[in-house]
Parts: sequence; C-alpha cells; structure tokens
Amino acid sequence: MARRGREMGKGRLRKETQSAFSQLPFQNLKIPYQPYNIISDDQIEAIHDASMDVLEQIGINFLLDEARDILKQAGADVREGETRVRFERGMVEELVAKAPSEFTMHARNPAHNIQFGANNINFALVASPPNASDMIGGRRAGNMTDFLDFIKLGQSLNITHMIGGYPVEPADLPANTRHLTAEREVIKLSDKVSFGYSLGRDRIHDSMEMIRIGRGVSWDQMKNEPSIMTTVNANSPLQYDIPMLIGMIEMATHGQPVSVTPFTLAGAMAPVTLAGALAQQNAEALAGIAFIQAVNPGSPVWYGGFTSNVDMKTGAPAFGTPEYAKAVLIGGQLTRRYGVPYRSSNVNASNAPDVQSAYESQMSIWPCMLGHANLVKHALGWLEGGLCASFEKVIIDAEMLQMMAEVMKPVEINDAEFGLSAIEEVGPGGHYFGCAHTMERYETAFYSPMLSDWQNFENWQEAGSLDATTRAHNIYKQLLADFVPPALDPAVAEELDHFVERRIAEGGQDPNSYGERK
Amino acid sequence: MARRGREMGKGRLRKETQSAFSQLPFQNLKIPYQPYNIISDDQIEAIHDASMDVLEQIGINFLLDEARDILKQAGADVREGETRVRFERGMVEELVAKAPSEFTMHARNPAHNIQFGANNINFALVASPPNASDMIGGRRAGNMTDFLDFIKLGQSLNITHMIGGYPVEPADLPANTRHLTAEREVIKLSDKVSFGYSLGRDRIHDSMEMIRIGRGVSWDQMKNEPSIMTTVNANSPLQYDIPMLIGMIEMATHGQPVSVTPFTLAGAMAPVTLAGALAQQNAEALAGIAFIQAVNPGSPVWYGGFTSNVDMKTGAPAFGTPEYAKAVLIGGQLTRRYGVPYRSSNVNASNAPDVQSAYESQMSIWPCMLGHANLVKHALGWLEGGLCASFEKVIIDAEMLQMMAEVMKPVEINDAEFGLSAIEEVGPGGHYFGCAHTMERYETAFYSPMLSDWQNFENWQEAGSLDATTRAHNIYKQLLADFVPPALDPAVAEELDHFVERRIAEGGQDPNSYGERK
Repeated sequence: MARRGREMGKGRLRKETQSAFSQLPFQNLKIPYQPYNIISDDQIEAIHDASMDVLEQIGINFLLDEARDILKQAGADVREGETRVRFERGMVEELVAKAPSEFTMHARNPAHNIQFGANNINFALVASPPNASDMIGGRRAGNMTDFLDFIKLGQSLNITHMIGGYPVEPADLPANTRHLTAEREVIKLSDKVSFGYSLGRDRIHDSMEMIRIGRGVSWDQMKNEPSIMTTVNANSPLQYDIPMLIGMIEMATHGQPVSVTPFTLAGAMAPVTLAGALAQQNAEALAGIAFIQAVNPGSPVWYGGFTSNVDMKTGAPAFGTPEYAKAVLIGGQLTRRYGVPYRSSNVNASNAPDVQSAYESQMSIWPCMLGHANLVKHALGWLEGGLCASFEKVIIDAEMLQMMAEVMKPVEINDAEFGLSAIEEVGPGGHYFGCAHTMERYETAFYSPMLSDWQNFENWQEAGSLDATTRAHNIYKQLLADFVPPALDPAVAEELDHFVERRIAEGGQDPNSYGERK
Repeated sequence: MARRGREMGKGRLRKETQSAFSQLPFQNLKIPYQPYNIISDDQIEAIHDASMDVLEQIGINFLLDEARDILKQAGADVREGETRVRFERGMVEELVAKAPSEFTMHARNPAHNIQFGANNINFALVASPPNASDMIGGRRAGNMTDFLDFIKLGQSLNITHMIGGYPVEPADLPANTRHLTAEREVIKLSDKVSFGYSLGRDRIHDSMEMIRIGRGVSWDQMKNEPSIMTTVNANSPLQYDIPMLIGMIEMATHGQPVSVTPFTLAGAMAPVTLAGALAQQNAEALAGIAFIQAVNPGSPVWYGGFTSNVDMKTGAPAFGTPEYAKAVLIGGQLTRRYGVPYRSSNVNASNAPDVQSAYESQMSIWPCMLGHANLVKHALGWLEGGLCASFEKVIIDAEMLQMMAEVMKPVEINDAEFGLSAIEEVGPGGHYFGCAHTMERYETAFYSPMLSDWQNFENWQEAGSLDATTRAHNIYKQLLADFVPPALDPAVAEELDHFVERRIAEGGQDPNSYGERK
C-alpha cells in the first residue's frame, strides 16, 4: 500500500490487473430521494375515480365460488348465478386500508431478511421463463440443470435480495412433484427469501411447509413472519381465475404476502391508452387486495404494476418502452395513495443479451428507483419479454443494479469532503493523485464495477477485445465454479428431505386439480 | 386499413414486415416534470460557499494578459506579475447574474432553431474524438470521409438538435486550414445549429464568419441571434489557458454562446470526493462565466458540468458511473441556483458499442433529463470516454434519446382516454384489439422504435439473429445511402466557397499561433 501510495504520489499510476470479481455487500437498500411524480394529485384522483367506476359499474369476475362467498360476506355486490362481482368504492377503500404499509420478509438466514414499503427497494431473480440461454450453449427449454445454476447465481450475487419464482421452469421434472423437488433445492442452495406458486391448494401449501421447515419455525411464528411470496396475476381484463384465488386464500390465511399484479398490456388486455390501462390495472389490483383483506385483514400484499404496451403493428408485447417507464412511475404514485408496498419489474423484449436488452432494462430500473418500487421482480436475468432466462443478462443486470444502488448512496457534503486544503495544496495545473485527501479515501471513494471494463482501447484489444456480454458469460461461469452452498442445519435438511419424499410418495399434486382446502 | 381493422377485430393480428426505418419528427423538446433534486438547498449553499472560498482564497490562473486586464477592470484581485486571479464572492454573483437565463440559437434553417434554459433539452452530436469506428471497418484515426458521414447522420436523425463540434477530428486535413474545409462541409451538409473551436482568434472568427454567411445575415443581426457554439474547458484544476480565453473573448464580443465546462475528474484533476470535485467545478465554471460577463454583459453561456471519476486502481477515467449520475443531478441544482442554462453530456467508457456503452449512457441520459440539462453534448456517438466516435453508437443513442423524448411526452388523463365504455364493451376475459377505442388510436398510441426489435424469438432467428448493434450498423449504412443534403441558396454556397478559398489562400491559421484580435 505504501509503495502504491508513493507511486501515486509521483503521479504515475501503475496499471494493475483487474481483480477477478468484486461486488457490493448484501444491503437493505433504501431510496434516499423523494419519489418522482409525473402526474398531478388531481390526475391520480381521476385514475382512482375511473377505476372505482369500473369496480362499481362493470365489476370483476371471481371464478371461485368460495371467493364470491367471502366477498359477499364482506359486503360486495354478488348476484346469484353470476361470477361478476361489483364493489362499492367505500368498501374497497376500507378493505385496502387494512393492508399493512410496511412488512419484513424473513429469510432462512436472518441476515438476508428484507423490508417492504416506505423507501425500501429489493431485487428478485428472474421468475418463470420457459426457456434458458447462454451465448455459447444457445437457447433451450427450461430444465433442472439450468434452474440450479440460476439459483446459485442468485445466491452468489449480493444484489439479489430474493428468489422470486422458478428462475426457469424445470420442465424436465414431473409436473405433479416438480414444486417439491425444485423448491427443496432452492432452500438448500439459497438462504434468501423465497417463493411458491399459486397453482392449487396442495402446491402452495407444500411450498409454505418447505419454507417453514427451512427456517425451522412453527406455523404460529411463520404466520407473524412473512417468509414466502407468491405472485397472483389477474387474467386481465377483469378476471381472477380459480387457482389464483385459491392461492390468495391460502397465502392470506397463513399471513404470507401476495403480489397482486394485473398484467395490463395496453392495446391487448387493456385499453390502448395509458390512462385506460392504468385505470384497469388499478381496478384489478385493488379488487385483489380488497379480496385478500376480506380473507384475512392485515395480511401483507404488494400492489403490483405491470402495464406495458403491444407493438400495434404486430401485436407483439413490448417491454421497457417509454410507455412502460411512465406506467411504472404513475403506478408508484397510485400505491402511495393507498399506502401499500409497490411491486414492479425489470423488463425488456430483446431476443439477445445485447444493447437493446440493456437500454430497455434501464427504462425499467430508473423508473423503479424513481417511483419507489419496493420489490423489483425479474430484476436479474429476464429476456424476450419473459420467455427466456439469460445467464449473461443476470450478470449485466447485477452490474446495472449495483450501479443504481450506488446512485442511491447519499452524497456526503461537509468540510472534510470538500477538502479545500487539498485544492489549495494541489493548486492550478496540478493533480490530486498523491495528496493526503486522496490517499485517505481512494480505496473506497468510487464504485468498483464487476462487469464494466475501463481499460484503454489498446489494453482492451490486447486482452481479446471482449465485449461486455462475453465478459458477463465468463463471470457467470466463474461464479458457478466458485459456488459454495450456504450453511444448513443437517437436522433441518433431513426434515426437509423427509417431507419432500413423503409428499412425492403421495403423488404430489395433480396439476389439473386444485387440491383440498387445508 | 379497413382490412387491417377487420383482422384486428378478429383478434388475430397479421405479422407485418417491419418498416425499414421510422423516426420521430424534429421537435423542440421540453421536460414536463420537476427537476429531480438529490441534495438539499442547504447542501447546495454549502457547495456554493466552498467554491466561493476557492475563488476568494485560492483563485484561478488566467494565463492571458488581456483576460487579467479585463478582470482587473471588473474588480477582481489581480496582482502584478501573477497569473492567479482571486474573486470576491459578491463580484462573482453580480457578474454571473448578468448571463441570460434563456436564449435561442438560430440555425441555417429556422425550423431547426433551438431554445436553451428553463425546461428545454437539446441533443448534440458527438464532438472531438480522435478516432472513428464501425463494427465492420474497425477503429481508425479520424479522417474527412468519416467526418462527413457523421455529419450526414446528424442531419438525418431528427433527434439530433445540433452539431456540437467535429464529430471526429478530420486529421487528414492540413491543420492550418482544417477548420475552413471541415466547417464549410458542415454548413453544406446540415442546416442545424453548428459550432466553432476556440483555438485561436483567426479560427474562431473564421467559424463565426462561415456560420454568418451560411445563415445569410449581417454581423449586427448575428450578434443578437446566437448562431454558433463553442466549448471552453478549464484546464482543471483552476486554470484557463490562452486559446480558451481568446475564444471566450471573441465569442462573447460577438454575442455567441460559450459552454464553460470544467473537466473535473474526481481523483485526478479534482478532489477524490464528489463534494470537492463539485466545489471545484463550480468555482471554475463561475469564474469562466463571470469572465465572459465582464467581456460582454448579457452574452449567453451554458454552465457546463463534466464531473466524473477515475478508476482508482488504474487511474483510467470512467464515465457514466453512479458518481457521474449524481454529479449531473447536483450540477443541475447548482445551475438553477444561478439561473443559467445547463450543459451536460451523454458519456460512457466502453471500448465497443456493447451493453456497457448502453447502460453507462443510460446513467447519463436519465440524469440529464431528471436534472434538466438544456444541452446534452456528445448525445449521439460517443465511445471510449471520448476517444472514439462510433457509427453504431450514433444509432443506439438515437433510439435511446427518442425513447427519452417519449418519456417526456405528458400522459393524457381524461375521460376519452380512460375509455370506460371500451372496458365495459370488452368485459372480463375479452381483448381490446378490435374495439373502437383502440381502432381510433392504435396507429399513434405508442412509440414506434427505430432499432429495437420486438419480433418473437423464432422470427428474429429466422431473420438472422441480428443483435441490436448489428442492426444499428445496417441502419446507419442505409441512412447514409439515403442521404439528401438540405437546401442551400446557391448564392450563399458561392459566398461561402469564396470566403473559404480566400482564407485558404491566405494560409488559414498557424495552429501554434493565436492570431490577432479582430
């Protein structure tokens, strides 16, 4: 260090080999800046009113009998022989107000607990694509090998706060027992907050049970400590289907948080205007949240925004568009009106981990920060509008998210930081490489990238002219090679194995049935 | 259209061939949202105070005798035999207050006039790299052929508001007459606002004269209609050299705007802290602006911010970093305190037009919009921290800037946009492809990209699996093939040719001399 210091003092910085891999520590990130509002409070009220008109006059289909019974009990307008449920606006607001504005999710490793609501922001690994790809192996159908590798990356990369679903569908596992086999491995390979899918009563219940065993807590404790998340998408427009409603009931009954996320693609499943799509998003999200509060008042939820648009030339869905950016920002304004945590996503529609994937993602990441999204799903690895999980994109996203984490680090403004004596010491025409003010701070002064290459052109060329996607490939391979699973109490592992083996022996759950109420 | 409409009504959108190239019209862009402030007013005052301490106690070197005479006359502390000039803070604030808060720049084509100050934002083509590159031809030293091609792209792409300098140095032209030969071609190939370099009295005067001839106006009119821009960089730390000061004097005397831009790389030419680098930036920028106002009160300027950081491992400059993003935002807050237009840049340090170049650029473009930068230099084509102009990056940037332009298009919130009757008509589980609300709007509802490809994977693969950088290459080639020069009055062209030929015959200007005061 002293030698280095002297060299810096001479103003000739030695070119050092870049360290193989450096990353920020795991952090509970908070956005220190005000939310960025792009429409007025009056305009937010207008969207609210339009969505209340939808709920009062048009209504939402709730396809599960039990769900309609719950809503009728709560005072909704449920008519005999109709699946359509209409909601009086006062009732909706009253129910939504019961949802907590903040909650903590508990991980298997308490150091990885995470907070939602207020100005907290958390990044979840890509969830649910049917395909996986890397630039050497190409694109292939989802499988367990890739699934495990993605989980390892999610665990290794500190910027990943949680596993938000199957990072890719392990389609080579039998459907009846897939959730058991796959989620057991998630619990073993990762000690971060995890997920379950709302695809029938047995499955979501199995998922809760595995997480409970992994954490080594009782059902009573678990009920007070949200530990597993699920996402429920409305079947936009204006419909909640049976598996989703069962999932909401099961999760809410056990105090586990649900991301209620209408998928309102403007021009396809929602009006072709942002105003219309957001009014519909708001109606669907609030109906879902109100339903959950009717099941179990105070059960945690996220208001999920997923309004994007289609390419009107082809009908293809588009993501990370300017319209998406604005929908994310307005979605944040809406959630703040209701005082519920906000869930958004890091999206793009590119078919390759190329510049399009990067700039469309940035059109998501900046609005998520600016709009105070508390949960950013698909934050690492999403490609092709969600049809593919990309290994290189995981690394590209990790770098972009780390950069955003550093943007959120408040600038220190004080006399020691100004360093006027250093400015005086260096004087006109000098340089700051060797002065004391620099030497005291240089090691931690700036963000140190994991993927970006700042070598000059000649050195970069000499090192093989590797573009950032190629470097991302090499980094993910190295991370997998270096992976060490997190500690797990052998007794817990054994209990988990026993449960999974028993449930597999019982046949898991028929994906075409919904299972029995627990 | 009717046939298309019926097809949409059936919900099966016909896959259409994507049109070769579409772009937004030329627009005077305004940022409709509030500036995004990341530090408090008190913290801004603290930076202001620190910079005033620098100006009062440490001072700035002004290396030109004439400049020190002007400053002495204006009341600065100029001591016999010293190049260091110290400024009393009241004097600085008084002079800076004389700078206009808004001004218009006049283009050869009045339809391309542009506004600075307030919430206007304008994008300028890359300026000054010594190298050019494209992915097929590779990287080469700056030359006139590439120079001309970049100018053509700047003219063709409507999102380019101005040409901000040599897009690449035409180093194959003789140095003495380079500015004459090169800038004549700029005026012929582009009718947008243009530039001159502050590299000696004769050269900047020649540049002004060529622009004046191109516009067909008198010197009197030109003096009241800013028509040519130049950038002046402090030789940070704390120094203005002779050619820059001559440029400032010549431009200010003729009422032409100067971007006063300290290049404060934290850890190298400025303190290793953002607070220190920004205090130094502020001192240097205000000293330069005050000097210009001493030369000619009311002459237009931009407050230029260019604070980034070096890689402390290697000393390499880094751009588009989280620190850069914060410096851009705080720079905006500072300029609003002084009421002067703000100039920033779209930067990155990548060696290739790859994902790094895209995400680092986004770390510039978002802060430029959020911080209300009025002039974004290097907005299209910058690579390698300014050492290379990339043809593909021009197209990538054009797409990213167009997307930002669309983000800045306010969302319409009203009953017609909500389309509640459409929501009712479509109902639960339906789709919006064919309803009247969609059909009336679908052609212009959403941003239509120039570079992004939203085809599904199979179609994209069938079309050759072209990544976005490769598509950008094809687009720029096509734009060059399609280029048509803008109209130019033959009499004006003739006058321009006469002037240039006369000045070439006179020998242009020796780059090692500063020329005589006009």
